[in-house]
Amino acid sequence: MSWRKNTDKLKMKNRLQHDFDQMSRFGALPGGGVTRIAFTREDFQARNWLKLQMEKAGLTVSIDAVGNMRGRRAGEQELPPVMMGSHLDTVPQGGNYDGVVGVLAALEVIRCLNDRQLVTKRPVEVINFSAEESSRFGVGTLGSKAMTGKIDLKTAKTLMDKEGVSLYQALKNNSFPVDDMDSARVLPGQIHGFVEMHIEQGPVLESRKCSVGIVTAIAAATRFKVAITGRSDHSGSTPMDMRRDALAGASELILGVERIAGKEAGKSTVGTVGYCFVTPGSVNVVPGVVELGIDIRDTNLRDKERAASSVKTLMDQIAERRGLTIASHQLCNDTPVNLSEKMILTLKAAAHKTHQSCILLPSGAGHDAMNMAQITNVGMIFIPSLGGISHNTAEYSHMKDIEAGSRVLLETIIQLARE
Amino acid sequence: MSWRKNTDKLKMKNRLQHDFDQMSRFGALPGGGVTRIAFTREDFQARNWLKLQMEKAGLTVSIDAVGNMRGRRAGEQELPPVMMGSHLDTVPQGGNYDGVVGVLAALEVIRCLNDRQLVTKRPVEVINFSAEESSRFGVGTLGSKAMTGKIDLKTAKTLMDKEGVSLYQALKNNSFPVDDMDSARVLPGQIHGFVEMHIEQGPVLESRKCSVGIVTAIAAATRFKVAITGRSDHSGSTPMDMRRDALAGASELILGVERIAGKEAGKSTVGTVGYCFVTPGSVNVVPGVVELGIDIRDTNLRDKERAASSVKTLMDQIAERRGLTIASHQLCNDTPVNLSEKMILTLKAAAHKTHQSCILLPSGAGHDAMNMAQITNVGMIFIPSLGGISHNTAEYSHMKDIEAGSRVLLETIIQLARE
Repeated sequence: MSWRKNTDKLKMKNRLQHDFDQMSRFGALPGGGVTRIAFTREDFQARNWLKLQMEKAGLTVSIDAVGNMRGRRAGEQELPPVMMGSHLDTVPQGGNYDGVVGVLAALEVIRCLNDRQLVTKRPVEVINFSAEESSRFGVGTLGSKAMTGKIDLKTAKTLMDKEGVSLYQALKNNSFPVDDMDSARVLPGQIHGFVEMHIEQGPVLESRKCSVGIVTAIAAATRFKVAITGRSDHSGSTPMDMRRDALAGASELILGVERIAGKEAGKSTVGTVGYCFVTPGSVNVVPGVVELGIDIRDTNLRDKERAASSVKTLMDQIAERRGLTIASHQLCNDTPVNLSEKMILTLKAAAHKTHQSCILLPSGAGHDAMNMAQITNVGMIFIPSLGGISHNTAEYSHMKDIEAGSRVLLETIIQLARE
Repeated sequence: MSWRKNTDKLKMKNRLQHDFDQMSRFGALPGGGVTRIAFTREDFQARNWLKLQMEKAGLTVSIDAVGNMRGRRAGEQELPPVMMGSHLDTVPQGGNYDGVVGVLAALEVIRCLNDRQLVTKRPVEVINFSAEESSRFGVGTLGSKAMTGKIDLKTAKTLMDKEGVSLYQALKNNSFPVDDMDSARVLPGQIHGFVEMHIEQGPVLESRKCSVGIVTAIAAATRFKVAITGRSDHSGSTPMDMRRDALAGASELILGVERIAGKEAGKSTVGTVGYCFVTPGSVNVVPGVVELGIDIRDTNLRDKERAASSVKTLMDQIAERRGLTIASHQLCNDTPVNLSEKMILTLKAAAHKTHQSCILLPSGAGHDAMNMAQITNVGMIFIPSLGGISHNTAEYSHMKDIEAGSRVLLETIIQLARE
């Protein structure tokens, strides 16, 4: 390896490490990990820091009506740009890698282009999408959904967080011109290609001892918000056979989701009940109302639809048998996305050029890339998650893998910006 | 019926109605019902109002170190008094009758004694016990427990509400001299007898079309606070067979409690899981930790112990099979109480004298009377609960039944105060 390459490598490593250290401060939890929910104070700390770094790297920053942040590096020609990035928001008690990896790697790619004084034919953009995690509003990838026309102003007014604040109101409260939401739209042809680097959030790359994965397809979710209503009664004086216990009904449903996803649906189907609110929620009162959220995912559309339908049938059976009312509201029903063949080839070539062994794999998690695939050629680079753990304070990725992924991203972007 | 009796009846009805209307304001909910948790602002509104009414009725009011309110009507002799009363605190989203009936009927009995200018041999006291409901601190009948030496200062410091405020701190914050908790103790012999009037909170009296029930025994509770720990993971990329889902484990336990209490333990066993907190509690995260509260009750001690033991065995099985950690902490393990034979005879005679048909029945719910039975002869009068519903905003009792119960209470107190 030449002296020049070694210096480059050291620079990249130091800069990435520094950026990850900085980012980990915004929403840091005492015992480690991060809580940085979309549009909270912590999210804005991270956004402000990123804006500064983008400007330092010479990018022209623009922020759209739903808060998506774009930093543009001019090209020789005013052609549709090549875009790369991910998101900075996290789930409650999450980590410093999910989303962050894709934004910080993109920022580093820009610095490498600057170091090389490379003038690309096409402009190159870094993007930080708003509200990728569904933790706050029950629906995820909101920034890229708005950008690709998959949600409108009406939807933004109906998506509520637990405190009853709508996406619309949250944007309004932070002075985003959300009433002009259409201005955030990007039409097919306006972006030449989009690449998202992300942690795998699963165990495959680690078990295969591989630093880089190229994603072939993205699983999609069907989600339900479910309200189960029985009757709250005194826990001591209401005989067991006279109860209409909403939590007992909810428990049957939770175990049903586990059984249907794990045993009855397809090979790649997963199903989760992630929250469960009990009202009144007192040790001496039979629960009267339970609200829960169901998340079903698959890369296979047919299997996902079959699982969702089984869960709905089960709800009806439980309601009937227990004298409960079960109302379900479908929050989303997304379609799995196959990524661009051309992009997969470009990514493979970039991995080859940077001497990275890589494997092809599907993504079990949803990503902004899924929406961007509606308007442009999309590719995804995965790097390993330690123990397959994510959405958890123990989430971790090794810096050597982040570096490896960043090199593949750099080569891919150089190639795409040349087209 | 004589003119005198009719006037009496009208007076009682009007005064009771007025008092219930007043009490319903303290912690009133927009859609009906009441939330008046122990030692909150609403509880103190009710306490202050009661103090005023006690003083208006000529009672000498004293408040002990844990907030129990006693109003004393002097007797001819300085003998141990006859005591009657119940509690004014409620569960979250409760009603205007549970507890309130016993305090307001006792107040009305004093007014009737005043109307008749009756000087009793023994003093007569009205009591409002502190924190009868377990909603706030996980353990109930705290005022009468302190009075009968069943909790001490150390326990008062360990009993916590959901915000981490201890019973000790809640009392301290409200200027009760809790450090001198022993001063609240009443020893055997210091009270001649205690009578609590209460709503049935079950369906028996209503179905038997009976205004008055005389209680033979009080069921007792065994309670567990349970923490289930698994591992929180991404809901999309964690295969079903690699999960350690705390909520799925909790659901098995909830259904197990229902099955054990309803089918496997005794005829009168009931079991409830009243709350269930999920962490992190997000739609796209496999639940890592669940906390829940189990309440098992019975008038039969052996059956209750058998049920509690089955539930503990089930916890171990679930933990083992699912790779979870399940830690349970026993909050209480009370003994069912048989009420005094002598008191039952006195109550029967009073019902006969006031021309009320009555039945004997056990109490499925716990009451302050249960603790008072440790230091004196105790009796309980039940009146019907509409639909058997309590601990619910729909809780309701007819004024005619409250009146009937109050008349039986009046005659019982006159008899006891004469002894």
